[in-house]
Amino acid sequence: MYDVIVKNARIPQGHDTVLTNILVKDGKIAGFVESIEGLEGREIIDAKGNLTIPGCIDSHTHFMDPGFTHRENFLTGTSGAAAGGVTTIIDMPCCSVPSVRSVAQLENKIEKIKDKAIVDFALWGGVTGEDVREGWLHNVQEQADYGVTGFKVYMTPSVPTYPRVTDPEMYECFKAVAKTGLPVGVHAENFAMCDFYVNRFQEEGRMDGPAWAEARMILAEKVAIQLAISFAEDTGVRLHIVHMSTGIGADLVKEAKMRGLDVTAETCPHYLTLNYEETMSKYVQLAKIAPPIRTTEDNERLWKGIQEGSVDFIATDHAPYSLETEKLKEGFNIWTAFPGIPGVETMAPIIISEGYNKGRISLSRLVEILSTNAAKHYGLYPKKGIMNIGSDADFTIVDIDKEWTIEKDKMYCLNKYTPFDGFKLKGKIYKTIVRGKVVYEDGEGIVGEEGYGQFVKRQSIQKLDHIIKF
Amino acid sequence: MYDVIVKNARIPQGHDTVLTNILVKDGKIAGFVESIEGLEGREIIDAKGNLTIPGCIDSHTHFMDPGFTHRENFLTGTSGAAAGGVTTIIDMPCCSVPSVRSVAQLENKIEKIKDKAIVDFALWGGVTGEDVREGWLHNVQEQADYGVTGFKVYMTPSVPTYPRVTDPEMYECFKAVAKTGLPVGVHAENFAMCDFYVNRFQEEGRMDGPAWAEARMILAEKVAIQLAISFAEDTGVRLHIVHMSTGIGADLVKEAKMRGLDVTAETCPHYLTLNYEETMSKYVQLAKIAPPIRTTEDNERLWKGIQEGSVDFIATDHAPYSLETEKLKEGFNIWTAFPGIPGVETMAPIIISEGYNKGRISLSRLVEILSTNAAKHYGLYPKKGIMNIGSDADFTIVDIDKEWTIEKDKMYCLNKYTPFDGFKLKGKIYKTIVRGKVVYEDGEGIVGEEGYGQFVKRQSIQKLDHIIKF
Amino acid sequence: MYDVIVKNARIPQGHDTVLTNILVKDGKIAGFVESIEGLEGREIIDAKGNLTIPGCIDSHTHFMDPGFTHRENFLTGTSGAAAGGVTTIIDMPCCSVPSVRSVAQLENKIEKIKDKAIVDFALWGGVTGEDVREGWLHNVQEQADYGVTGFKVYMTPSVPTYPRVTDPEMYECFKAVAKTGLPVGVHAENFAMCDFYVNRFQEEGRMDGPAWAEARMILAEKVAIQLAISFAEDTGVRLHIVHMSTGIGADLVKEAKMRGLDVTAETCPHYLTLNYEETMSKYVQLAKIAPPIRTTEDNERLWKGIQEGSVDFIATDHAPYSLETEKLKEGFNIWTAFPGIPGVETMAPIIISEGYNKGRISLSRLVEILSTNAAKHYGLYPKKGIMNIGSDADFTIVDIDKEWTIEKDKMYCLNKYTPFDGFKLKGKIYKTIVRGKVVYEDGEGIVGEEGYGQFVKRQSIQKLDHIIKF
Amino acid sequence: MYDVIVKNARIPQGHDTVLTNILVKDGKIAGFVESIEGLEGREIIDAKGNLTIPGCIDSHTHFMDPGFTHRENFLTGTSGAAAGGVTTIIDMPCCSVPSVRSVAQLENKIEKIKDKAIVDFALWGGVTGEDVREGWLHNVQEQADYGVTGFKVYMTPSVPTYPRVTDPEMYECFKAVAKTGLPVGVHAENFAMCDFYVNRFQEEGRMDGPAWAEARMILAEKVAIQLAISFAEDTGVRLHIVHMSTGIGADLVKEAKMRGLDVTAETCPHYLTLNYEETMSKYVQLAKIAPPIRTTEDNERLWKGIQEGSVDFIATDHAPYSLETEKLKEGFNIWTAFPGIPGVETMAPIIISEGYNKGRISLSRLVEILSTNAAKHYGLYPKKGIMNIGSDADFTIVDIDKEWTIEKDKMYCLNKYTPFDGFKLKGKIYKTIVRGKVVYEDGEGIVGEEGYGQFVKRQSIQKLDHIIKF
Ligand SMILES: [Zn+2]
Ligand SMILES: [Zn+2]
Ligand SMILES: [Zn+2]
Ligand SMILES: [Zn+2]
Ligand SMILES: [Zn+2]
Ligand SMILES: [Zn+2]
Ligand SMILES: [Zn+2]
Ligand SMILES: [Zn+2]
Repeated sequence: MYDVIVKNARIPQGHDTVLTNILVKDGKIAGFVESIEGLEGREIIDAKGNLTIPGCIDSHTHFMDPGFTHRENFLTGTSGAAAGGVTTIIDMPCCSVPSVRSVAQLENKIEKIKDKAIVDFALWGGVTGEDVREGWLHNVQEQADYGVTGFKVYMTPSVPTYPRVTDPEMYECFKAVAKTGLPVGVHAENFAMCDFYVNRFQEEGRMDGPAWAEARMILAEKVAIQLAISFAEDTGVRLHIVHMSTGIGADLVKEAKMRGLDVTAETCPHYLTLNYEETMSKYVQLAKIAPPIRTTEDNERLWKGIQEGSVDFIATDHAPYSLETEKLKEGFNIWTAFPGIPGVETMAPIIISEGYNKGRISLSRLVEILSTNAAKHYGLYPKKGIMNIGSDADFTIVDIDKEWTIEKDKMYCLNKYTPFDGFKLKGKIYKTIVRGKVVYEDGEGIVGEEGYGQFVKRQSIQKLDHIIKF
Repeated sequence: MYDVIVKNARIPQGHDTVLTNILVKDGKIAGFVESIEGLEGREIIDAKGNLTIPGCIDSHTHFMDPGFTHRENFLTGTSGAAAGGVTTIIDMPCCSVPSVRSVAQLENKIEKIKDKAIVDFALWGGVTGEDVREGWLHNVQEQADYGVTGFKVYMTPSVPTYPRVTDPEMYECFKAVAKTGLPVGVHAENFAMCDFYVNRFQEEGRMDGPAWAEARMILAEKVAIQLAISFAEDTGVRLHIVHMSTGIGADLVKEAKMRGLDVTAETCPHYLTLNYEETMSKYVQLAKIAPPIRTTEDNERLWKGIQEGSVDFIATDHAPYSLETEKLKEGFNIWTAFPGIPGVETMAPIIISEGYNKGRISLSRLVEILSTNAAKHYGLYPKKGIMNIGSDADFTIVDIDKEWTIEKDKMYCLNKYTPFDGFKLKGKIYKTIVRGKVVYEDGEGIVGEEGYGQFVKRQSIQKLDHIIKF
Repeated sequence: MYDVIVKNARIPQGHDTVLTNILVKDGKIAGFVESIEGLEGREIIDAKGNLTIPGCIDSHTHFMDPGFTHRENFLTGTSGAAAGGVTTIIDMPCCSVPSVRSVAQLENKIEKIKDKAIVDFALWGGVTGEDVREGWLHNVQEQADYGVTGFKVYMTPSVPTYPRVTDPEMYECFKAVAKTGLPVGVHAENFAMCDFYVNRFQEEGRMDGPAWAEARMILAEKVAIQLAISFAEDTGVRLHIVHMSTGIGADLVKEAKMRGLDVTAETCPHYLTLNYEETMSKYVQLAKIAPPIRTTEDNERLWKGIQEGSVDFIATDHAPYSLETEKLKEGFNIWTAFPGIPGVETMAPIIISEGYNKGRISLSRLVEILSTNAAKHYGLYPKKGIMNIGSDADFTIVDIDKEWTIEKDKMYCLNKYTPFDGFKLKGKIYKTIVRGKVVYEDGEGIVGEEGYGQFVKRQSIQKLDHIIKF
Repeated sequence: MYDVIVKNARIPQGHDTVLTNILVKDGKIAGFVESIEGLEGREIIDAKGNLTIPGCIDSHTHFMDPGFTHRENFLTGTSGAAAGGVTTIIDMPCCSVPSVRSVAQLENKIEKIKDKAIVDFALWGGVTGEDVREGWLHNVQEQADYGVTGFKVYMTPSVPTYPRVTDPEMYECFKAVAKTGLPVGVHAENFAMCDFYVNRFQEEGRMDGPAWAEARMILAEKVAIQLAISFAEDTGVRLHIVHMSTGIGADLVKEAKMRGLDVTAETCPHYLTLNYEETMSKYVQLAKIAPPIRTTEDNERLWKGIQEGSVDFIATDHAPYSLETEKLKEGFNIWTAFPGIPGVETMAPIIISEGYNKGRISLSRLVEILSTNAAKHYGLYPKKGIMNIGSDADFTIVDIDKEWTIEKDKMYCLNKYTPFDGFKLKGKIYKTIVRGKVVYEDGEGIVGEEGYGQFVKRQSIQKLDHIIKF
């Protein structure tokens, strides 16, 4: 007697797919069978022949809880995740009050959010310039021991409660994180460059959306990544470039990998598909993020990075702000509005549509960049990230040929805006299943329960192979 | 009702293994289940918790049948395969009478061997200098259409019925094979170099075993590979270096891959583990092969090649000669004895022992180099080379910790000699299963039937990704 | 009738040298003859068969005049130059009051120093963060038009009158200098890194000399050079790394050259011959400079850079401070003493002894790095930097085998200290000749006159070829 | 009292030129003076302000003497040299009877030609497959000791008296030459490739000129160079690729240099300026040479090689055949005519016109590739190849702006044909001076005497620096 049988699931097998039935017991995969004749399940979920892949992971979200729950909270955030086929998110340490930079703060955060989550979640640890200055770096190993997946470091200011690092502070943080064996995730933009040109453009009176992208120029990301790589080479830390937005970034990461350095990178759907001239002219502050949307050339070079392995996986940097008070308030403009957009809900559909369905990536690469690689990189594998016997029964079932259009008003997250509003896609989430339980169903909406989602500690320290495909 | 259930099989899953039960129907995998409660099978095979991997493939054998059956034949050859955990072999076109260079000759060969095979087999096509000179290159596409897996080309003379190519003839062969989309497998040694130094050393009176290796020097393989790569670059053919014996070869293939060329390579267990000074001093003509065994430095560089991906998979170049008449006959010496050794029977155990059990390669890499990659490269995948639902139920079950010693007299092949006689191993074949049927069992010996083995046509044209791990 | 004949001069010719007589008319070279029979000269200078090379150039001096004449002044500075075989110096814009960042300030400086110089001099232009902030960048082209040789930029603070640049300010400076076609010379150390570790080491109570070098670590130079190269690539400016102290720097410059970028570098005698552990333990603040003296490994890698062409020429960063009030004053220590040492007087002898006489470099490379390359790079060639017919008759005559020891008390510069005190050399300046006139003679001392030295405007815009020797 | 004064000579000085007067005593340069007032010379040669460079060197001629004097002889050959501004030639060992492969044969050749030469000459040594087979390799060191400049090896057959090498014979030759420290000059084409396609095209009935170039394809040169480089790497011999005709060759040589190998190359004027489609259609067998003329793309890539340093200097492969009996005889065609063209007479004018006057190369590079580098490479420097005091007074005086047209009937060599007939040039030889004596004068023609030209032994063993300009 199985708890659940997911029948008629088309799963990836080598180059191709195979139709099978997935057996689930105690929330874990117990088998795959060609025929369920003679087998019983308490619950039968019919995948109806749809593509069934390991549950997607968004390893870079800011669900703003506790503290900024007018922007997002764990219920709305994980609802969006479920609707977007994401079965596990890894939340950032910065955008909550207090920010998460110690075990006590981790425990506080988990306490505040544990009854809200619809999908599973892991957590990033934190370390800032303040921790260096105040002698608090012992918190790094303690957070690692507690089970965080990595440590976030900001080269530019973001929220006041989570100060940026100067160059030597970053170097000190890298040394501390290196000892844990975990990756350090770096927001890589040269602060002085960004600050200078944002001020200059403001002084010059530019008020157009594209001004934001031109001020936070590609060069500012390039030199920040170069600096981080040099510090990583010196300290031996595992360096991860979060939300990498530029083609030159992919080149730098590739070169570092080829030299044997432990450097990885994620990019986001918007850096793969949108260009700033069009998008920021149209959406202005609603498309304001940091780093900014770049050019179509960057889009293509990042796809190439995804294909060849210089870019390791996809995440969203989901970070919405209040439309009323932080984005569109009377008098707010491209300079004064807060930088951030939601993303968890649209990640998988966009990558499936633009990547797999447009022939840019194979099915096996799709699974790697949406699920497996993040799971491995952050030590959640093989509990998450793969459909092995014994793994969690997390599935993203996709109606691969269904055409639809993103509509901001149908989103589940709290603040309903996105630069993808009106974006046409092929491939829609059919069902999202977390540990054998359907939490989202196309047509029905969210069917999961608040608090069903569990906190997942890092299982072990694992590294992605650094593989380049020529 | 399943035909067969392989119970208590420990199969690779990501970084690790999982204990499962494998369901088999019609010779194909029908499922994996944690528990077989409620399931029935006509036959239950108990793997007893042993490691179960996709059936190993030896893609480079010379079973000498029809024509030279005093050396080996398809019954003895496939018996050795079964005993060595090999469920599919791909036989070379050269060492049979007639050699295989046309569809008629393919059909003749299949007719002669089809009732002898214990494991499955596919076939290489052939093309020689004679085919170029005589205007017979149309046979290339015809063989491809018939289902061969690739085409073998010899830069040095081997058997009289299968003439070598001169440089321009090789170039013409490459152009012809390029059109088929299939790989050309090249025996890469510079003939003039080998010939000159073999003659010179003979004239100088050297009669020691190592003289053979010194005469057919590393440089002769290096320049032959360089030439083949340049011709491949020019013609666009998929170039495969068979039985690559040198570290410099691995470097050249890596460099070619990094330039985007479609160049692959196999190496053999003896090139990974033996050095000529020791081995050829001890075994003299019994260890005489071409290319010869090299140095310990080459061993290590080839393991590195296996690790990083410059060497794609393992094969054996199994080519035994008659001990009585061709190797040890009165008056035969290092120069006059025929060059060749058996290998199909010891390939998997040696690679498991020296590679996986000594920590040189991971389990997933082990499976790739013994099974998956050859299957993909030669278009047999996913029928062969993987344990997918729907794939052939070919399994190599390994008693991973069992220590044993290779003894030549216990071999199944016809001529019982090997430079590995007395070699100590950890890891022994427990059972060999072809399409759900046990053909070999430790302790029992060969339990398969003559003629059970099937001819497998190439399924499609597939390419290995050219991946380098840094 | 010639003005001067320098007889018995042994001049470099290809791989070798040739004994000749040099004819001089109007301060310029008018010919070379094997025999002076039948020729007359108003003055005959006998080189006595000594090696005679083009007058050496120190393209990086801080003669501190006007403004800090208690440190050095143009009379003492150029006396040291003459004694050191240097016939032309190029003075930096920073260490005078006012600093030189406009044509008016250039004219003021020339007025103040023109009656003091014993050897010829050219001048660097200046640009700082203040010029960016205040909108004074128009001064850049104006200085270029006036005849400066390049522009100096500081990434770290040096003197209060010459503010450092932030990263975006450096980028703006590069854009402005790029338009002139002249090189920008960058003091490349990451300010925040240096500042942080200097403070930390002070807090930790380190008072030893080596602490200075460990605080201003190699990594701080590495990342500063990387940043400058990225900015140079983006702006197209000709980037020159002044006083490069690290082996990794040579690697970065080489790599940039091989990518076709216009990046050059100079190093100093102390970075080629001294290591910080020994030297800073012994001399403490008397050896305090920025960047600091490095390791013996850096010495060797910089010599290699000189040999292969990644390092383009030698300069000294001559910048002495008052022994009484700025270096050794009661209570001054490694942290509070001013950073700087003299160098113009010992450059050529050290490079001749350690480079040429120890076989590290050929005679032709010696001439390039002490004279020709700086002349070309800064647009003074062929007036300076070569012994062509028509070139200025500037000669450094060297008694190539004479052994001697540097003694600080015999120095001509104002503040008599040097980390080379007691350093044994082979090769001594025999005579220094500027435009046909002897200004220094071994045994006699300075024989030139104050004010004889002329201001030399840049003659044209020239570039060094970027040549790497493999 | 000087023997000769060459007055009003404009000589290269750094980036520019300077007008001077050159003093000559005993055939050597004794000085350069701005004014000759007060100086006497037995003879005054007026250069009239024309560009005066070191006498050009053609280091690759086949003057066919003794033995094939119906093709060329040392009088006609050196007359052509003089007319072409060439003051030294280095004659190949192959095209005389007997060929030159021993000291006795060297002495015989010198005896036969010494009374004919108008310009100076040095000699190549020889080594062939026959020398390997017959055990005559001791002749290699003996020839080196006698003073040859290098050793020629043929991968393809040329003349019957000078057999080609097989691959192992080439390897043996390289080992023998490696011991001498001298370069081995290789005619690098894959023989089997050339032979096969020449035969095939003939069989196919192609009779057009371009067929020759298509048969001896670029790939045949590429793989031959690769082989030679691998053998050079193994043996340590200094490898020189003679008459390199392809762009890919320049790439291979560059790569070898960058790996630190001692590999050099020459190309010829026809490979830099002509393309086979046009030239061979027009001149058919009169433009037949081996390797053949290539494409305009090869022209450009070879110019780039000359610019960046991957190609080291220019030579001509001057090898004319009898128009009557070997080129244009009744019934002779593209396949049967002998391969070879003259070149010594047009080398310098073509390179001056197409290289320097068209701005492809600087004046200093012009001097290097026409004179200095060959002199250094072959150990004749600084006696030849430079205008140093003490060097031979060999000058090529060029009327740099004079426009003219090559006319075959005005040539001095014996068989008057050239694919450059009708080629328009800017820059003409004004005077050719050997050891202070005019041997050719524009308008006057040859004014030198038979037998004035001297045999020049190699002075020493020298190597070119391997420098790449990025
Ligand atoms: Zn960020
Ligand atoms: Zn973020
Ligand atoms: Zn073979
Ligand atoms: Zn074989
Ligand atoms: Zn400085
Ligand atoms: Zn300085
Ligand atoms: Zn030739
Ligand atoms: Zn030739």
